Amino acid sequence: MMGGGPDSPAAESKKEVLLVLFPAPESNMAPSLDKIKKKFPKLEVEYVNATTTAVWDHEAGIPEDVYERATIIATVAALPPTPSLAPNLGLIQFFSAGINHVMKHPIYTDSKIPLCTATGIHGPQIAEWVILTTLVQSHGYNDLYEAQKKHAWKKDNGAGSVRDLPGQRVGVLGYGSIGRQVARVAQALGMDVIAYTASPRTTPESKKDKGFIVPGTGDPDGSIPSAWYSGTSKEALHAFLKLEIDLLVISVPLTPATFHFLSTPEFDLLAASNPNLSYIANISRGDIIDQPALIDALKSKKLRGAAVDVTSPEPLPEDHPLWEAPNLVLTPHISSNSSRYMERAFQLLEANIGKKERGEGLINEVDRKRGY
Amino acid sequence: MMGGGPDSPAAESKKEVLLVLFPAPESNMAPSLDKIKKKFPKLEVEYVNATTTAVWDHEAGIPEDVYERATIIATVAALPPTPSLAPNLGLIQFFSAGINHVMKHPIYTDSKIPLCTATGIHGPQIAEWVILTTLVQSHGYNDLYEAQKKHAWKKDNGAGSVRDLPGQRVGVLGYGSIGRQVARVAQALGMDVIAYTASPRTTPESKKDKGFIVPGTGDPDGSIPSAWYSGTSKEALHAFLKLEIDLLVISVPLTPATFHFLSTPEFDLLAASNPNLSYIANISRGDIIDQPALIDALKSKKLRGAAVDVTSPEPLPEDHPLWEAPNLVLTPHISSNSSRYMERAFQLLEANIGKKERGEGLINEVDRKRGY
Repeated sequence: MMGGGPDSPAAESKKEVLLVLFPAPESNMAPSLDKIKKKFPKLEVEYVNATTTAVWDHEAGIPEDVYERATIIATVAALPPTPSLAPNLGLIQFFSAGINHVMKHPIYTDSKIPLCTATGIHGPQIAEWVILTTLVQSHGYNDLYEAQKKHAWKKDNGAGSVRDLPGQRVGVLGYGSIGRQVARVAQALGMDVIAYTASPRTTPESKKDKGFIVPGTGDPDGSIPSAWYSGTSKEALHAFLKLEIDLLVISVPLTPATFHFLSTPEFDLLAASNPNLSYIANISRGDIIDQPALIDALKSKKLRGAAVDVTSPEPLPEDHPLWEAPNLVLTPHISSNSSRYMERAFQLLEANIGKKERGEGLINEVDRKRGY
Repeated sequence: MMGGGPDSPAAESKKEVLLVLFPAPESNMAPSLDKIKKKFPKLEVEYVNATTTAVWDHEAGIPEDVYERATIIATVAALPPTPSLAPNLGLIQFFSAGINHVMKHPIYTDSKIPLCTATGIHGPQIAEWVILTTLVQSHGYNDLYEAQKKHAWKKDNGAGSVRDLPGQRVGVLGYGSIGRQVARVAQALGMDVIAYTASPRTTPESKKDKGFIVPGTGDPDGSIPSAWYSGTSKEALHAFLKLEIDLLVISVPLTPATFHFLSTPEFDLLAASNPNLSYIANISRGDIIDQPALIDALKSKKLRGAAVDVTSPEPLPEDHPLWEAPNLVLTPHISSNSSRYMERAFQLLEANIGKKERGEGLINEVDRKRGY
């Protein structure tokens, strides 16, 4: 038995061995590793600098025998070449939100070893990016910044037309961990929140966030939205876009159904329903939006403005017209960046080691058929 | 009796006459005036474009007889020259937060006509400014903006070092309507909130916000802070600054006790208690901070950064060194600007007309001895 405190069951079980595979020197990870060791004093922790050059080459440079004793692996991408080489493995915790990169690996296709993603650890920083870019536009921050550079005390540089947020409505397209944290902050700012999901969420249970939630953030019970809407058809989407949305947050995954989910008809609907016009923020994938239609909508003032952290293609070529679209904030797919990424990934790992120890359901466990 | 609905008391009373004195054409105010008329159908509403040239000249251009019938006046500054000219007056609602400009007026000195300020209507937009400038710094927004201007897809422009907010601590110096709304949003962002007030708030009643609160914002019961601190001495302040504050929000009024409340010893204390260093935001008055000490603290990296909407003097001269202090956001005293200022002032007026009608205590009533 591992991590036994006074309240743990007394039965002795096999020693737990955590193998951490990460493309960095062990010293970089010392604070996180120390925290895990302190929390689970009986846990044996092995660290391998998995590869610094080939993160996505799963087997790069790891001697096979390191896998043999491991009961838990925490990894970005490196994996035992076959399930049989890791006979004691009872949990693989990935440090990435998606695991498309291992779906053809024998561990995925030929084993039942529980796999857990890091979904949920990006919520806070991406929600901050959405709030930041929304306020940049509504408070005319770029003009304030340019005036400061010129040492110009200009009280009339657009700030008088600040339209502050209480009573405004945010529509969250895709109510996952990111959308829920945007909702939490938006509600605190005095906004009304409405949620849109692919499948209907009509019961209290279905409204819950079942993934990892950074403590003190998000909407665990789904209690924030004043109304829920759902569907994958354009018709269902259109009903949502008619609801006088002031800020539309796009946090749906890219699927065949959501490719160019927002195009000219959708921008027209947003404009028709809201005399103050909508601001949209896309932190999902560039192809959710028909990009030429977005440029047109901004130029023809169908939208108050937009913020995109994702484009099509990426990197966006230097001569692409999107860079110069009016009232647009464009950033290079950095909204998930955070110096606290690993700290949070280890919070999740710690939670799942505890769940495994207590025989409870794991957080963010992958359904192999569904693929996430 | 005015505004009688089905639930109102049946007793008939004198007709209420609202006189609105505002330095703008009546047509500008039509939506707000219409809303008041709709809410109180029996209320008579008179509007005078009080003066467009001399806002602070209280009597400018208003015929004395317009005051005679008024039972309520809503005003920026214009007032009846003497209390005897307005014998029916039972409420003066100011559209400004402070009323220093009328403290020597006979209405103030020689009458007991209830005076109400507009304290509280600035909370949302100023709190948004604090959150905006905090995120501008922590997400390296200025660099992102400059890269966009150059069409440069630069993933490594400082955003990797974003330190997101969950678990960080905000210290709110002055827990009034602005500080409370900052607290509300900061808590939603996952932050711990600690409050500092001049006088101790040890009972639930003393923690309440008794002024006007924009619906859906603020901290009406004072339930957000995890701890409260108080005092007007430097010693009391120092105990607060030692609490590893990540974001210090300065929203105390300027008084003799708070003149240069933050200077080198205080910046030293902040730095000593927090290895990640503090960010400070000042939306009060420039003289709360010893400005040369602030410049030194920024240059010597005792602070992570600062945002100031107020300076000493104002306007800040073009050649003043504060403009170029590192990691500083400087804006020209515009954080209270909002296109919704009057909408909100009329919300407050509407609430106070209702209070007067029902014989309840008024919101934001001035204590003439205290001066606010």
